[in-house]
Amino acid sequence: MQACELLAVAQTLLPIAQQDYRDAMASLAAAVNVVTTDGPHGRCGFTATAVCSVTDTPPTLLVCLNRSASVHAALTANATLCVNTLSGDQQALSNLFGGKTPMAERFAAAQWETWASGSPVLTGAAASFDCRVSQTVSVGTHDILFCEVLALSRQKEAAGLVYFDRAYHGVG
Amino acid sequence: MQACELLAVAQTLLPIAQQDYRDAMASLAAAVNVVTTDGPHGRCGFTATAVCSVTDTPPTLLVCLNRSASVHAALTANATLCVNTLSGDQQALSNLFGGKTPMAERFAAAQWETWASGSPVLTGAAASFDCRVSQTVSVGTHDILFCEVLALSRQKEAAGLVYFDRAYHGVG
Repeated sequence: MQACELLAVAQTLLPIAQQDYRDAMASLAAAVNVVTTDGPHGRCGFTATAVCSVTDTPPTLLVCLNRSASVHAALTANATLCVNTLSGDQQALSNLFGGKTPMAERFAAAQWETWASGSPVLTGAAASFDCRVSQTVSVGTHDILFCEVLALSRQKEAAGLVYFDRAYHGVG
Repeated sequence: MQACELLAVAQTLLPIAQQDYRDAMASLAAAVNVVTTDGPHGRCGFTATAVCSVTDTPPTLLVCLNRSASVHAALTANATLCVNTLSGDQQALSNLFGGKTPMAERFAAAQWETWASGSPVLTGAAASFDCRVSQTVSVGTHDILFCEVLALSRQKEAAGLVYFDRAYHGVG
């Protein structure tokens, strides 16, 4: 038995430490998105990397959202959102929407449209997916919001913005 | 009303075309993973970009899997899998596990260990997450497998492999 196997077997006897999990997840590169909502339950937005495509039939993506996040109530009650996938030159917006800045200041830093759902659609995003939440599943501390896409746009020439090894990287 | 808004409103009157959705999703960069399983229902592996972290309490990730995929039966029946997040120099494995190559040939192209779940763990991956499937949700054509992490490893210095705009990119 090799040393690496012994380590793995030992790990199974104990729960995986949260920090070890976070460290390993830092090696899984992810696109950076600003997820927004607006409606009767308020306007807000936050930075999310836990977004991925589910199916194209019907076009559906998912967003993982901590139930303790300040934006959780508005997002789930409005049940509409827009996933704005940031382009390579929008790193400053990622920091702004990932921090403690008041919502009004966050939105003042960029230009927005509204489409079908009423959620803020970011001008200059690499792609935007305007959605209604079709289903929610709770796992541990998080809700997974399954979102059917109502309208979308793509900026074909835009570079992407990726978070990997706890740093930003442009791609393309 | 601006031209871009008119376009968006028009889109809401018609379902989003699958190809438009795919084109927009090409702008959402994603890490490239080889997801494997082994057990009573067979050994197989496939390339997946629809993987993301869900929560660290308990450490849980998700994998989206087309129910018509050849690997669906073995993955869901074994109910164990390993997500091997590829490093920048493992692009050839992505192509191999994403194509029609017989399973034995795929696995012969790399070195593997087994840890807690019995799933093949890829030597040289940027990170590996050995998991048991804790919950499955069906949305449209796909199953979303929620996977609790039993053991993991990280190769801290490894570059990442990202798929963006229908091409591979190294990061880091």
